[in-house]
Amino acid sequence: VGRVIADQSVSLDGFSAGPNVRIGNGMGDGGEELHDWMWSEAGRTGRDGTAVEGPQELLAGAGAVVVGRRMFDLGEEPWGDPPPFHNNPVFVVTHRPKAPVVKQGGTTYTFVTDGLDATLARAREAAGGRDVVVLGGADVIQQCLQGGRLDELHIHLVHVLLGGGTRLFGDLDAASATFERKRVIDAEGVTHLRFRLVK
Amino acid sequence: VGRVIADQSVSLDGFSAGPNVRIGNGMGDGGEELHDWMWSEAGRTGRDGTAVEGPQELLAGAGAVVVGRRMFDLGEEPWGDPPPFHNNPVFVVTHRPKAPVVKQGGTTYTFVTDGLDATLARAREAAGGRDVVVLGGADVIQQCLQGGRLDELHIHLVHVLLGGGTRLFGDLDAASATFERKRVIDAEGVTHLRFRLVK
Repeated sequence: VGRVIADQSVSLDGFSAGPNVRIGNGMGDGGEELHDWMWSEAGRTGRDGTAVEGPQELLAGAGAVVVGRRMFDLGEEPWGDPPPFHNNPVFVVTHRPKAPVVKQGGTTYTFVTDGLDATLARAREAAGGRDVVVLGGADVIQQCLQGGRLDELHIHLVHVLLGGGTRLFGDLDAASATFERKRVIDAEGVTHLRFRLVK
Repeated sequence: VGRVIADQSVSLDGFSAGPNVRIGNGMGDGGEELHDWMWSEAGRTGRDGTAVEGPQELLAGAGAVVVGRRMFDLGEEPWGDPPPFHNNPVFVVTHRPKAPVVKQGGTTYTFVTDGLDATLARAREAAGGRDVVVLGGADVIQQCLQGGRLDELHIHLVHVLLGGGTRLFGDLDAASATFERKRVIDAEGVTHLRFRLVK
């Protein structure tokens, strides 16, 4: 059975996006720096030579993607056509109905209006035993953590300060989630941490 | 010449103390969990057998300690007599004058009212070439980071969520500090990260 895995790049002060997120500034002020490691060989390779499994590698092995509606609204244009999801179907959890959006290469954005669990169920079904990747935003990941819906959380801890923006964990407290660290890889500018959620 | 080093245990969501910090609850609600690793052999040893240099090891090699006034007010009683500072003199940065407090074993709390730089200068002088350890609180560490006053920051990242409390980095942004990671040690329940501040 596939796992449900969330993957996020986070600043040392706990933000997954900088201040002033809006269309055209989807990662917020300074937030793009959280993704710099993905474009650098040294960011994607541990000091001991271990290759890092980032979101692209995760998506390559996955069967479906889940995102929040705000993330879709911010991302649709920058993600482009075809979007960088390795042709996986993307399920968007939303309160506002919208017809499916079909992109080149096979990616279809499907809008699910009956809640997060229904969205995850659709994604699992489409994934056919492969992993479901939850790409965000923070609010969706918080709901996943709180409801015990995640199997793993992959954090790419980038040692910069953003000083404000979207706090990945919001107001979740110790009772919301119990983490067990599975792996640490130190690469240039980033510490890759993989956690298993204890259920 | 000795370095100025700050050492802090921090939750995965970026808090160095939980909510409701007050006398008798110095680490805030749930905050004591940030220090659990110090009392466990598995928390102080990396998976590869590397010994972790925690605050006690740091203090054993240091020549002086700096803390904020609030941290002193919260800490004096729980720290006890003698306090666990390896007999180092402790300089307390404060706006309110107070006569020195002498404890058993040689630790003296000296209250410095002419600012953080004067406090650090007093500590450096007392340290005589050994390291100065800044133990907190978060406000003092933020001032140290912002003013380029730190050589190293040691973070013990404990993978629990506190959901509120004191954010170690407050509102500091990318311009406040540039970090270079020196070492990562993964131990049970905690990831030990050591950063050098780029000046």
